[in-house]
Amino acid sequence: MKILIRNIKALLQTDPDNRPLVAGKEMSKLPLLEDAYLYVEDGVIRGFGEMAAFADSEFVKLSSHGDVHEIDATGRMVMPAFCDSHTHIVYDGSREIEYIDKIRGLSYEEIARRGGGILNSARRMQDASELQLVEQALERLEEVRALGTGAVEIKSGYGLTTESELKMLRVIRKLKELSPLTIRSTFLGAHAVPAEYKKRQGDYVDLIIEEMIPRVAGEGLADYIDVFCDRGFFTVEETDRILMAAMKHGLKPKLHANELDYSGGIQVGVKYDALSVDHLEFTGDEEIRALKDSNTMPTLLPGAAFFLEMVWPPARKMIDSGLPVAMASDYNPGSSPSGNMQFVMSLGSIKMKMLPEEVIHAVTLNGAYAMGVQDELGSIAPGKKANLIITKRIPTYAFLPYAYGSNKVEQVIINGKI
Amino acid sequence: MKILIRNIKALLQTDPDNRPLVAGKEMSKLPLLEDAYLYVEDGVIRGFGEMAAFADSEFVKLSSHGDVHEIDATGRMVMPAFCDSHTHIVYDGSREIEYIDKIRGLSYEEIARRGGGILNSARRMQDASELQLVEQALERLEEVRALGTGAVEIKSGYGLTTESELKMLRVIRKLKELSPLTIRSTFLGAHAVPAEYKKRQGDYVDLIIEEMIPRVAGEGLADYIDVFCDRGFFTVEETDRILMAAMKHGLKPKLHANELDYSGGIQVGVKYDALSVDHLEFTGDEEIRALKDSNTMPTLLPGAAFFLEMVWPPARKMIDSGLPVAMASDYNPGSSPSGNMQFVMSLGSIKMKMLPEEVIHAVTLNGAYAMGVQDELGSIAPGKKANLIITKRIPTYAFLPYAYGSNKVEQVIINGKI
Repeated sequence: MKILIRNIKALLQTDPDNRPLVAGKEMSKLPLLEDAYLYVEDGVIRGFGEMAAFADSEFVKLSSHGDVHEIDATGRMVMPAFCDSHTHIVYDGSREIEYIDKIRGLSYEEIARRGGGILNSARRMQDASELQLVEQALERLEEVRALGTGAVEIKSGYGLTTESELKMLRVIRKLKELSPLTIRSTFLGAHAVPAEYKKRQGDYVDLIIEEMIPRVAGEGLADYIDVFCDRGFFTVEETDRILMAAMKHGLKPKLHANELDYSGGIQVGVKYDALSVDHLEFTGDEEIRALKDSNTMPTLLPGAAFFLEMVWPPARKMIDSGLPVAMASDYNPGSSPSGNMQFVMSLGSIKMKMLPEEVIHAVTLNGAYAMGVQDELGSIAPGKKANLIITKRIPTYAFLPYAYGSNKVEQVIINGKI
Repeated sequence: MKILIRNIKALLQTDPDNRPLVAGKEMSKLPLLEDAYLYVEDGVIRGFGEMAAFADSEFVKLSSHGDVHEIDATGRMVMPAFCDSHTHIVYDGSREIEYIDKIRGLSYEEIARRGGGILNSARRMQDASELQLVEQALERLEEVRALGTGAVEIKSGYGLTTESELKMLRVIRKLKELSPLTIRSTFLGAHAVPAEYKKRQGDYVDLIIEEMIPRVAGEGLADYIDVFCDRGFFTVEETDRILMAAMKHGLKPKLHANELDYSGGIQVGVKYDALSVDHLEFTGDEEIRALKDSNTMPTLLPGAAFFLEMVWPPARKMIDSGLPVAMASDYNPGSSPSGNMQFVMSLGSIKMKMLPEEVIHAVTLNGAYAMGVQDELGSIAPGKKANLIITKRIPTYAFLPYAYGSNKVEQVIINGKI
């Protein structure tokens, strides 16, 4: 299928240099082309340019015969679809009941102690069939796709037994087959300590290392490994052991870190060359130094900070220190029941004082990097996958984070299909 | 047109007692009917009941002939459409430029001092044609309708000259004709002091009293009057003078009050039997006492508090003191560029700790009261207008505020039309 989009008001984040990520001051610059066209063939972006130059381009001929779908984007912008690099969308049912406990004043940790939280989802996970889980997750993927998301990382971590974790990862594998979205899977056996291991957390870590990781890696079920390295969850030493074992099995880390405290999670992530460290509410000078010369993408999840009423991660300080920043939804039933990346942009901007240009980079190219798909997604460049958003009529791109309650997405193209 | 909705999972806020509002502890009780039907004819709710009793009801016969539109609402809930009792949706263009100043750290008041804020909208208002304004406002109304809003109050206040204020009110009159939504108009000449009156604010108040109010009332252009009674805007004494003049012309007040300080706005509102006092970030014991035996609806605008990063109004304390609470969107280009009442519910719940039942009352019946339409809207009762929301498949009504980034509305019925 060929697609020719004409009269694009602005083509956002065209990246002729094919950078893998955007950091520091560069984040406030948004390469764009006004009054543009874009040509897609076989699911791939073939080229783009100014409308005035279209008549002299090679695309006139290419788009003049065969099955070409033409889109007039007058007044509309075109940008890369969102890359949501941190989600937990495989789960059974929602958790509004605990939510009411939360409104009544119980903390996240108190709810967890009462057997709510992750362990609640884990209980339901054991009972749910793969088919049920696939169906529910597909609905969630379809909802976020319509809101502009083109790539999603999905974690296990509501299993917490070997069989149940493998079940979750098989569900994610099934989603990769069934969904048009680009999906990456992450094994998160170290999401929480199951009740039966309460006083012997080390044994659970052993189970992860000796049984889960070998089986997950052996079956090729995960692209990455994650550990919730934070106060009340897994220690730096435990994380270190798990990541060492994972490394031997070729699993690169993406960590939950520094959500609840200065946990050392960022540093241990950098030590193992993590693709990303995520959450980062507690990030100080030392953590920023650790990230500075690393390959690790600091990934902020403002939806969780919003929903749990945490402090905001210091996005401004990170960017001003020269770091890159990605943002993801953390879509999950307990701490962030939303996968709306448009709202994530609004939170980044309204609450974390990121400029519109910065939030756009954070949810596209930097998000792509944080899930290892920056070579194929995240910017508008010839040869990249045609995962694109066509916006509604909007006055400027600043309108994207500004109009926080609106759906600004009119059409989403995934793999060159509308 | 007749509509029969069958198999409704839960019919929310059916109010057989036809209360004008819900206050205090009553707000945490949500009268509902499970597994229900609802019958609409000529734009009006005729009746409802349990599905099991449908076969024996009078509606079997009524719905058995003629043009009956049947809706199967299996898995879905039906509730009253939202009544958004405080908006400023007549304006020309948006204000993302100032928004960027705001992200860069300028305060609302600093932006106002630089000639931004309300005065920016006022300049553009003078240049815009009625037709342009009507078209833009209709688009906004259509957007909020699709998100579940069935009634909207709209204010003037970006005119700030007699002619420009009258133009805005004529635009609202036109919207009443053109839009299917129930609309109420409010004259807000006292929204800000125009630049040319900077050192002689009293003269502007005189202009409002001597020229604007008589003409607005004479042409029957406004249902209500509003004054921004707060620090840096209009004083209690000025508000008192304006409301006295308005009373003589039969205009009931709905005030902007206590957003920026303990301004006395609440008390002067109660003194003039205001229909509502709105914002209320600064509400203490004295203000709650003033409201306690009044007919005035405390109306919270959490979208503005979210966007401007104000303190949250003490909703919990108000309700626990026995007061009713309404919530509205404050949809406007400067301080709350969203009319999404579903997100207002989420903010009420996540940020102000209102229970799901309380937020539902706040955006339906109490919102209807705050704009004087409680006799015809805001609950599900025979004889009321059929302005209804049919939700998507949701597990419980707590899901409405909980899933903060999702559109939970599948279908909206306005005046008995789909």
